[in-house]
Amino acid sequence: MKVLVVGANGQIGRQFVKMLADSDKYTPKAMIRKEEQISYFNGLGVESVLSSLEGSVEEITEAMKDCDAVVFAAGSGGKTGADQTLLIDLDGAAKTIEAAEQTGTERFLMISAINADKRQMWKEDMAHYYVAKHHADNILRASGLVYTIIRPGLLTNDAGTGKILAVEDLESGQISREDVARVLLHSLDNEHVFNKTFAIISGEDDIDHALNQL
Amino acid sequence: MKVLVVGANGQIGRQFVKMLADSDKYTPKAMIRKEEQISYFNGLGVESVLSSLEGSVEEITEAMKDCDAVVFAAGSGGKTGADQTLLIDLDGAAKTIEAAEQTGTERFLMISAINADKRQMWKEDMAHYYVAKHHADNILRASGLVYTIIRPGLLTNDAGTGKILAVEDLESGQISREDVARVLLHSLDNEHVFNKTFAIISGEDDIDHALNQL
Repeated sequence: MKVLVVGANGQIGRQFVKMLADSDKYTPKAMIRKEEQISYFNGLGVESVLSSLEGSVEEITEAMKDCDAVVFAAGSGGKTGADQTLLIDLDGAAKTIEAAEQTGTERFLMISAINADKRQMWKEDMAHYYVAKHHADNILRASGLVYTIIRPGLLTNDAGTGKILAVEDLESGQISREDVARVLLHSLDNEHVFNKTFAIISGEDDIDHALNQL
Repeated sequence: MKVLVVGANGQIGRQFVKMLADSDKYTPKAMIRKEEQISYFNGLGVESVLSSLEGSVEEITEAMKDCDAVVFAAGSGGKTGADQTLLIDLDGAAKTIEAAEQTGTERFLMISAINADKRQMWKEDMAHYYVAKHHADNILRASGLVYTIIRPGLLTNDAGTGKILAVEDLESGQISREDVARVLLHSLDNEHVFNKTFAIISGEDDIDHALNQL
């Protein structure tokens, strides 16, 4: 199964690509934005493709057309303004979803954010980010794709434990980026999480066990 | 027919409310954000309701519940940042659409923008605005509401002529805010424009004639 990783050079993206490359079942294709990022993926023996989320749907379609699944791990990041949030986190996601529909790449995993469905929880200085994630998730759910929307709590750079809590509704908590990447890996072909939206934080369950309860 | 005008204090909103108040068929209800705006509408003999698009869906529902139609004429304006564009033009519209669904207010007219469906036409400094309008329009079209999405060209403060060009697809042109307000008025119960999206600029056709061709 060949997996297009959108946002492959991000903090979760890089760890996830490595996990895919180390697996027997999956082959990653890293979608990246800058030429200087290619050498990192070459070093891992991972195929990469230059394509921008600010480009056209056709450009993303071209990057995706030999893939079986898409993981959207991109984000404009905390340092950019709300205009980039709109262009990347919302419209970049929307274009990637359109590309998946057009190429028949049915399996689509999205990294969302905890509380993205709960407007009353959106703090004012982050509200624009949640608006973008909320509507990107809605667009994915309204598509015909086989989606999984994963909503991690506060992200940390701690080492992963492989132990999580996964539930449909959760208001707070934290989780390492490494464990988020692992959850993506375990979700790819797990039918229990097809067409589901759920939150994850660090916890006490093995990932497979946690996902199978959903 | 009682019409909730969201963004009633805006440049198009004020003209449209006056037209509704002057008509025999319609009664406006002005949804406004600030207490100091009430006296203007009182002066016109128009009912107003204080409700913010940054508030909850429930608050908007409360404002809407005795109305038969909704016109979304709100916009964060050119002076605010992209964060306000996300909160007002996108999520404010989404919440108003949810409120209309919840109250069974089936008729919904939206002021969009020319080229909102054409990403290749979005100029970089305005792209965030188009992203918001594009996705707000998509949310409305995916709703069960009887929508009309009106996409005016460049807005001017010229006096209206009552003469327009209305077509499904159009790339440029301009139109006065007064004529946009008139098009809203003529669209409210014109079945030719139910569940349609179209662009308008100033032109040579009477408004009713132009709309009946769509």
